Amino acid sequence: MLLNVDLSDQRPVYQQLRDQVVEAIADGVIHEGNRLPTTRQLAADLAVNFHTVAKAYDLLRQEGFIQVSRKTGTAVRITGEGPAPEWRAGLRTVLAEAFAKGMPKEEILAACREVLDSFGASRRTDGSLA
Amino acid sequence: MLLNVDLSDQRPVYQQLRDQVVEAIADGVIHEGNRLPTTRQLAADLAVNFHTVAKAYDLLRQEGFIQVSRKTGTAVRITGEGPAPEWRAGLRTVLAEAFAKGMPKEEILAACREVLDSFGASRRTDGSLA
Repeated sequence: MLLNVDLSDQRPVYQQLRDQVVEAIADGVIHEGNRLPTTRQLAADLAVNFHTVAKAYDLLRQEGFIQVSRKTGTAVRITGEGPAPEWRAGLRTVLAEAFAKGMPKEEILAACREVLDSFGASRRTDGSLA
Repeated sequence: MLLNVDLSDQRPVYQQLRDQVVEAIADGVIHEGNRLPTTRQLAADLAVNFHTVAKAYDLLRQEGFIQVSRKTGTAVRITGEGPAPEWRAGLRTVLAEAFAKGMPKEEILAACREVLDSFGASRRTDGSLA
């Protein structure tokens, strides 16, 4: 997994890191049980503030994507079955962004299909964690 | 259009307002040319800070959903054809959130279809503005 920070990106840095970890899980690049770098190490590698990385990890922990342990460190650990109830609201917003700009529904759906096809090359097709 | 603020929502208030306007356009509740309340009026109606509404309107203007004029006020005005290039990155993140949590691709796609079906009851089916 190659985490990186794009200063031209409109998202705050902690959000970029959080999004990249979620996408790396979906891509199958990292799996249940895989270790993530320590907060301190990742902050040094990316030359960002320690608290920025801590905020990203804290969000990922709250959302049930990782587990943080003093003893064993930070690892991918998916909790819950399927996305949180708020997920649909976020999906609705992002699809509205395209439809409000005149993108036809069929094209939006095709874009969704393309993105989904790109996920999980190294995971089982039923979507369970490999 | 009924804009409202949910204090239990994790999104900042300006983002909630921005998202609601975008969804109201997608829903067909507001259309090209429709006026939005003034910043001052909306701030008073929602009992939020003037600058919060100004930030939401500024974002909507930058994104090409509304036009702000001193003379004629703020109105829905869609610029550009289709969503911005960054849109796909946002779509990828939101779909990754579900897939990383083990939601099968077919279910995710069905959710996308359902959301899209709910859009634009009062718009033409080709996705152009009514």
